Formats: sequence, structure tokens, C-alpha cells
Amino acid sequence: MASPEIEALTQALARLPGLGPRSARRAVLHLLKKRETALGPLLNALNAVEENLATCSNCGNIDTTNPCGICTDPRRDSRALCVVEEVADLWALDRSRLFPGRFHVLGGRLSALEGIRPEDLTIDSLVRRIEAGGTDEVVLAMNATLEGQTTAHYIAERIERFPIRVTQLAHGLPVGGELDYLDEGTLAQALRARRPVA
Amino acid sequence: MASPEIEALTQALARLPGLGPRSARRAVLHLLKKRETALGPLLNALNAVEENLATCSNCGNIDTTNPCGICTDPRRDSRALCVVEEVADLWALDRSRLFPGRFHVLGGRLSALEGIRPEDLTIDSLVRRIEAGGTDEVVLAMNATLEGQTTAHYIAERIERFPIRVTQLAHGLPVGGELDYLDEGTLAQALRARRPVA
Repeated sequence: MASPEIEALTQALARLPGLGPRSARRAVLHLLKKRETALGPLLNALNAVEENLATCSNCGNIDTTNPCGICTDPRRDSRALCVVEEVADLWALDRSRLFPGRFHVLGGRLSALEGIRPEDLTIDSLVRRIEAGGTDEVVLAMNATLEGQTTAHYIAERIERFPIRVTQLAHGLPVGGELDYLDEGTLAQALRARRPVA
Repeated sequence: MASPEIEALTQALARLPGLGPRSARRAVLHLLKKRETALGPLLNALNAVEENLATCSNCGNIDTTNPCGICTDPRRDSRALCVVEEVADLWALDRSRLFPGRFHVLGGRLSALEGIRPEDLTIDSLVRRIEAGGTDEVVLAMNATLEGQTTAHYIAERIERFPIRVTQLAHGLPVGGELDYLDEGTLAQALRARRPVA
């Protein structure tokens, strides 16, 4: 049996998504054998994050500053606002570097099944951000799920009264998608949203 | 872009075996969102291990005490010594709870290709442990690879002069192994080591 300290570390790592008991054990062994190059840096990085962790009171992003790095970045277009369900979605879009504006994290999606109502999400604060002015376009970047789309429709109705452009991500064939393997829902969306050949 | 602290944590996690950049990012997000239940415990566990980390000067195991928990466990049979290549092998055998004795970690295997010679492993210290007396049996638990077996033969020759039993792990069909799918080397070993039906 490993010592209680090592056992506790293995269990803490095994609870991370993507790691199980076996891979956690391998990771611990790696950390123990590479004290200077693996354990030390990981410990320092965790400490630095733990000390500064903050949720952006503006957009809901998780960062080490509040407001977050995206909200304070002067090179970003503050007139475009992209609404996402979760911080993970924000990070995914930010990594793609395709959206030059700011974000708004809802903290979830409307769900009758899970009992998540509009007041459980940050929709009111989104409305207040738009009310405050300075926004030209809101991009609704919800997941292409039933609940994501319900949420998008609900928000679109809530902000209808503002003189801004409200758009949503296009639905259709994913890049590399073969018709033969795609589900009917995607095919239906792609057909409905068909566009004239340029 | 995430803050430098978060980026550093992602990179430190991505260097663990079994995690890549993508899964490290998911793990970081999990840690950030679960500050109390995930980040805190992991940080504490890492700290506790870092503070106490030690290589057992007796057997070469990595633990939080020196001598390690196995070497000091009075319920273990100190007369049987199992020689393994790496700490990972020790842990694997220890987890199986099939070997009630103590261990000796070589720190690798002889390899002409990688230039690893007997003096690069802890073979001398193994010989001294046997010389000191109190050992009845040495189990050579090297990997069933060319280099592992070369190492086993070398050690067997080095400790031939002591009045002790020297054994090695059996080679043959793995549990659930189907002849049709096994390599010829394993089949040859299994045939060579065939035993009378009881």
C-alpha cells in the first residue's frame, strides 16, 4: 500500500475528468519521479491559480483577474457580444480566434427537465449590459441542442426591443461531414438553410 | 487567451502521462469551477506529498517515509525479496497483494542499446542486502522482454554464490489468452515450460 499522502494525491487526480484510477496512478508516479520538472511546476501553477481565481463580474468568465482578460483587452471589439452557455464554450470560441468581440456566460441553459429557469441564468445581467448601451450585435452561440435552442429563442425575445442585430451560429453540415453518415436533424437544418450558389 | 497562470497550469497538467493539451484544458476548467471540492484537495495532496517525498534508501521505492512503508511493515516477510525494474512494477505487484515479502527496485534494466550497465542499476546494493543475511528467496520479477531477461540472468549469476533460492516469474499463456491470437514467443515459452496435468 502506498502512504496515505500518495493515496490522497492519487484520488484527487483520479477525480479529474479524463483521468481514472489507473491513469492517476501513472501520473502520480511520474510526479514522484520527476520532482523538480513535474511536481514542482504543477504545484506552483496550482498555487498561482488558486490565489488569484476569480469569476468576472462582467461576463462570467473564470480568470485570475476581475474583470477578466477578455473584458479588459482594448484590442477587442466591445460592440459585439457573444452569448454562450458555459465557460468551456467561451474558451473554445476564444481559442478559435474567430470572434473579436466580448462574451457573456449564461451559466447553463433553460431546462424544464432539470428545473432551470431564466432567473437561474445570467439573462438579467445580459439585458442590463445591452441596456447600458455600446452593443451593436449579439451573437447567440448556444449548443445546437433542443435546450440550447430554446434558450436562444427565449433570449432573442427578451432583447427584441433593443435596436441591435441579434444573430445565431449557422447550423448545417459540419466540415468533412458525409451526408450518408449525418443524422436527419442535421440534414433537415442544412436543407432548410440552403443558400444560392455564389 | 487565458491568463498566464491558467496557461501555466494547463501546460503543467498536459505534461502528465495520459493527459494531452485538450484533456488538460478540460481538467483545468473542472478545477476552476470546483475550487473547494477539486482544486483545494488536489493542492493540499500535492503539498503533502512534496513535503515528505523520499526514495527508500533500503529498496528504492518512492514513498513519503524513508525507509518506506513496505520495508518497515512488520507483517511482511523479510526473508523473501522481489527484484523489480521500476517503482511502477513494485506498485503493480504490491496492489495485487500476492507477494508478502519485501522489494528491491533496480531503477531500470541492462541495455546495450541505451548504454545502461550493471553499475547504473542498484545491483551492488542488492548483493549487499543479500550478503547481510536474513534472505531465503529472491524472486526475479523482470519484464518478459529481451532486456528484462538479460538483466535477470545477470543478477542470477551475481547472486549464485549465496545459499538462497533464486526464482523468476513463470512465462506462458496470460489468463484469457487465446492461442490463435498469441505471438510465437509466448507460445514457445508456454510449450517449453509445459507441466504434467495434475
